[in-house]
Amino acid sequence: SLGCPGSEMPWERTLRLQPGSRIHALCVLGTHIATDVYGAAPAGAVAFGVKHTEGVNVEVAFRGQAEPGLLPGVSHWPLNEGAVLRFSMNRASTEVNDNKVIVIFYAEGGQPIDQARVFLTGIGISLDVDADRDGMVEKNNPNKASWTWGPEGHGAILLVTCDRDSPLSPAPDCDDERVFSKEDLLDMSRMVLRIEGPQHLPRGYEIVLYVHMSDADKVGVFHMQNPFFGQHYVHVLGRRKLCHVVQYTGGAAELEFFVEGLQFPDETFPGLISIHVSLLETLAEGIPLSPIFTDTVVFRVAPWIMMPSTLAPENVFVCSVKDNYLYIKEIKNLVNKAGCDLKVCFGYINRGDRWMQDEIEFGYTQAPHKSFAVVLDSPQDTGLEQFPIKELLGPDFGYVRREPLFKAISSLDSFGNLEVSPPVTAAGKEYPLGRILIGSSFPTPAGRRMTRVVRDFLFAQKVQAPVELFSDWLAMGHVNEFVTFVPSPDAKRFRMLMASPAACYKLFRQKQKEGLGEATMFKGYSGTDTKRVTINKVLSNGIMMQQNQYVQRCIDWNRDILKKELGLTEEDIIDVPALFKLDKGKAMPYFPNMVPMLILSKELGIPKPFGPLVGGECCLEHHVRSLLEPLGLRCCFLEDISSYHGRLGEVHCGTNVQRRPFAFRWWHVTP
Amino acid sequence: SLGCPGSEMPWERTLRLQPGSRIHALCVLGTHIATDVYGAAPAGAVAFGVKHTEGVNVEVAFRGQAEPGLLPGVSHWPLNEGAVLRFSMNRASTEVNDNKVIVIFYAEGGQPIDQARVFLTGIGISLDVDADRDGMVEKNNPNKASWTWGPEGHGAILLVTCDRDSPLSPAPDCDDERVFSKEDLLDMSRMVLRIEGPQHLPRGYEIVLYVHMSDADKVGVFHMQNPFFGQHYVHVLGRRKLCHVVQYTGGAAELEFFVEGLQFPDETFPGLISIHVSLLETLAEGIPLSPIFTDTVVFRVAPWIMMPSTLAPENVFVCSVKDNYLYIKEIKNLVNKAGCDLKVCFGYINRGDRWMQDEIEFGYTQAPHKSFAVVLDSPQDTGLEQFPIKELLGPDFGYVRREPLFKAISSLDSFGNLEVSPPVTAAGKEYPLGRILIGSSFPTPAGRRMTRVVRDFLFAQKVQAPVELFSDWLAMGHVNEFVTFVPSPDAKRFRMLMASPAACYKLFRQKQKEGLGEATMFKGYSGTDTKRVTINKVLSNGIMMQQNQYVQRCIDWNRDILKKELGLTEEDIIDVPALFKLDKGKAMPYFPNMVPMLILSKELGIPKPFGPLVGGECCLEHHVRSLLEPLGLRCCFLEDISSYHGRLGEVHCGTNVQRRPFAFRWWHVTP
Repeated sequence: SLGCPGSEMPWERTLRLQPGSRIHALCVLGTHIATDVYGAAPAGAVAFGVKHTEGVNVEVAFRGQAEPGLLPGVSHWPLNEGAVLRFSMNRASTEVNDNKVIVIFYAEGGQPIDQARVFLTGIGISLDVDADRDGMVEKNNPNKASWTWGPEGHGAILLVTCDRDSPLSPAPDCDDERVFSKEDLLDMSRMVLRIEGPQHLPRGYEIVLYVHMSDADKVGVFHMQNPFFGQHYVHVLGRRKLCHVVQYTGGAAELEFFVEGLQFPDETFPGLISIHVSLLETLAEGIPLSPIFTDTVVFRVAPWIMMPSTLAPENVFVCSVKDNYLYIKEIKNLVNKAGCDLKVCFGYINRGDRWMQDEIEFGYTQAPHKSFAVVLDSPQDTGLEQFPIKELLGPDFGYVRREPLFKAISSLDSFGNLEVSPPVTAAGKEYPLGRILIGSSFPTPAGRRMTRVVRDFLFAQKVQAPVELFSDWLAMGHVNEFVTFVPSPDAKRFRMLMASPAACYKLFRQKQKEGLGEATMFKGYSGTDTKRVTINKVLSNGIMMQQNQYVQRCIDWNRDILKKELGLTEEDIIDVPALFKLDKGKAMPYFPNMVPMLILSKELGIPKPFGPLVGGECCLEHHVRSLLEPLGLRCCFLEDISSYHGRLGEVHCGTNVQRRPFAFRWWHVTP
Repeated sequence: SLGCPGSEMPWERTLRLQPGSRIHALCVLGTHIATDVYGAAPAGAVAFGVKHTEGVNVEVAFRGQAEPGLLPGVSHWPLNEGAVLRFSMNRASTEVNDNKVIVIFYAEGGQPIDQARVFLTGIGISLDVDADRDGMVEKNNPNKASWTWGPEGHGAILLVTCDRDSPLSPAPDCDDERVFSKEDLLDMSRMVLRIEGPQHLPRGYEIVLYVHMSDADKVGVFHMQNPFFGQHYVHVLGRRKLCHVVQYTGGAAELEFFVEGLQFPDETFPGLISIHVSLLETLAEGIPLSPIFTDTVVFRVAPWIMMPSTLAPENVFVCSVKDNYLYIKEIKNLVNKAGCDLKVCFGYINRGDRWMQDEIEFGYTQAPHKSFAVVLDSPQDTGLEQFPIKELLGPDFGYVRREPLFKAISSLDSFGNLEVSPPVTAAGKEYPLGRILIGSSFPTPAGRRMTRVVRDFLFAQKVQAPVELFSDWLAMGHVNEFVTFVPSPDAKRFRMLMASPAACYKLFRQKQKEGLGEATMFKGYSGTDTKRVTINKVLSNGIMMQQNQYVQRCIDWNRDILKKELGLTEEDIIDVPALFKLDKGKAMPYFPNMVPMLILSKELGIPKPFGPLVGGECCLEHHVRSLLEPLGLRCCFLEDISSYHGRLGEVHCGTNVQRRPFAFRWWHVTP
């Protein structure tokens, strides 16, 4: 019953009076104890009175209706059916049994005939977390046992400690049950068990912290032992430890625990984890423990979040291979202009694999107390396989991977096929962290799709609700081949760029009308096709026109979906000239595709299209400049023919950018 | 994006005009076609006009703002940036290309310089289901692609065809991909693909029905072939068939499909299934198909629903074993009085197992068009293992089972540990089908729990949100040992009965005060303990008192939870005297426990407690009568000592009742 309005009602515990004798009870601060006076009354009793010490608040209720508090003048009530005494304590006891409630039963005529005594020890027990998300653990938040989304929401947050803070550890922190360093603790969420009471508890009480078996493989809890003799953190709850008996120390104690998440949300794990503390009592030696109080806290494991190309770049990653020295030099210039850092992955790690975009996706995870980068590793195992674990995983740099049980992966599992839009509002719904875009064969009935475990993982993160696009018409099948997003200085804050054969034909026809039909393409192009290609030749190629009409229809299908699912208008879209050719029924670019560009704030590294030269200038470059420069963007056209384009990729596919995370906090999203 | 407000907006498809030539297009009724007039305009054009046939609705829009419709006097508009033509058709074409839109471009001065012609064929395609839940498939319900709960909700419903309509089949209907009989079809949900258009479609179009791979193992779709030559149903979509090409027949066709669910909701399957139809086109031979329209319907698989003991009984099941002839005779009398049927399970099926309650739980599943019984089979495999499949599974009697991967099951997996409350309202939230109650070791940190797959299954049904009680203190650990529900004629409609040592001690003390302390228990009792037991002896047994205080605390913990989670007051609860003894730290009844009774409307079959005889009458029976008879209930005390109680069970455990389902429909619940 998490999240139901009643969860804030104080817990009411039944206690049975025993007329003629005294009973002892612990009264947990903030809870009520209810005793059935009518049911416990001795034969002959017709009325009852109550005496109690100052530390106890007492209320008499008849059939659920509370009477006004005990007035000094009122000494007794009629013993009606349903008469109940409800009491509570506001302050912890300094000594055992330092408070008392005495119920006196009266016979007809008013003489007392029996009494029931309850000796009370007030004890404060509160398992506390940062339920209000301000980075601090507050005391007994009434909402700590439930979790809600949105700016008015509440509920504590847990990070998956998938980074590796200690260089001594071979694997991410969440893989072991040890704490190697202070930094490891800083990633965890603090949990405080506050206990307040007399110096010693009466015999027979036990305080136990525990998790359910179904949560145990998703959480780890550490506790500091011997705080005065060198700090030593002990793993007290987790995979193989379902419960932990808490030592009662007396007075006002704040036991500090550190909690780590072990798994990101997934199809079979919605992300919520509960931790409980129970107060158990036993009546006597040989009698089992029975529960008298339970307190629960709920955490949500923070999702993995992607960053759109419109966010500020921090690090640009590129592979050094035998033939891309010039390319890297050009990228370095661009990175310098953009004021971010270039990280080159060398041959001993990349093992000849240049497709930095396809192996990994940069993201991050965030809690109120901490945020760090997390790389999602693609299920494909190419040359770069070792890169994310060997070069990225480290302090505040986490690692996550989803792998299908059976290795049935396709080109659609490369992360060129995984993008995310900037923040949008569509059909009245806000997506302040954008929406994930993945390519698929949908809505055609057969074909390639991203492997299910990765799709499920992406959907389960919830805060960037994925949109499935149709990308199976492409040979590589990657969404980044036909859509990207650039920043803009206006209210919309971005433009969506889409590859467009129609825009290319329109431009070429216009040039033809201007008498420039003999302008030649592919000048200086080092690709295999060395025949002279002119605008006239392209426009007179009927097969190419038909194939590009088909491609345009496939792109238009996606364009229509994106307009609807991202709430875009025609004015938000820029059609970037592109031409494709079909090979075995699948499309590949005819000249370098400009859409898979490298976007570093205002600096764009665009694949050099080698379009028709007009007055020494490429008319495609000229056209694209005229579309993008008015937005304050600077276009730099990079030659990627031999090192990337010739191998069915472009600039974007050969790079990867780690960006500055969103300022917007994911828990303010309403998914 | 299911369920978002925008899903009711008509689909808008982009079509590219080709000035100077004609293009052909299918226009799907109910969708819009948008063409970018500005972008397609030839050089020199400054204005445009539109002519169109009667069957087409045309609207001109500038930068997203629609202009008023085409007025007769207005012949052309300025060719502003963002000028778009949006058109649609209301009626299917009778002939291919029978409608036209012509866009004429004008130069400065007004002379026409070019025109773009679009030849249109109107086609209606609608995949239809019973989205308004009235048992009939309506036409193109705007909500058919989403699913919402509650009385104002919408969305189609699918039954898991887990019954066996044909005696020829060895397994439930959902296990095969065949239709054996008309009855099999009646369990399925109808789905109609309505297609309306000219006699023949132009070449190159294809209509395809399909499901995603992730849904394919949860749904089966059948289609009638050759309706005029004997009806033959073909399996067209499901486990190994992801898509089905639909034959276009021309005119107005209604293709009828029958859809079955294959799996109940579960932890990894929230219950929603989508079926799609796509219209694909190709531009020419050798060019792949591209999508131009997709229609989607969503079904929710109906949950498995339990029936509380307050619902009217239909069939009472009991096992015949070698020593329970008299017991069955007594049950038969009771069943006759209650006007329901007794079904005796004989030795060749029960193989000596008498615990009918523990092997199975009766439930049902329901859709607007059909409802039938479904038995949930416990993961334990005792003598009765064969009973549900051999004796229950049949026409309109389904079967479902959840089995853990590793056979780690305990007594808490018996279905005496699975009950359901009557309809309740708690903390402002309504549970019109009640709440499932399962016993567990919660809130103690260790102990037995119901196996995870069964718990997950119960939680995943959603409409009877489970409450986890603490039952591990009992030797058998079953919730039915301490709580049950009887019907009452008042506004609340039920009372919750709870086993109560406190009530027993109170009654015994009262009798002692009345001078009846020497009244003897267990007279005529055929159990092993034959020493004379009196009220005085019981009351003077300190160990027994302490053990029962412990039991009362365990029961009170549950009582407090039930009050909170079911929204009950003291007046809704009847405490039924009971005593327990501890053996190896776990509780078992001291005398036959009256709470696990057989409830058949107003007829109660209560385990005969063999309490202290006062004037020849058992004072426990007398007391219980005084509590229950004022509610119009009739108490019949059944001797179950040797055949059940002596083996740690009672009347309830040796019986099972199939009841009349709720009148309330589960889709009106808001979980």
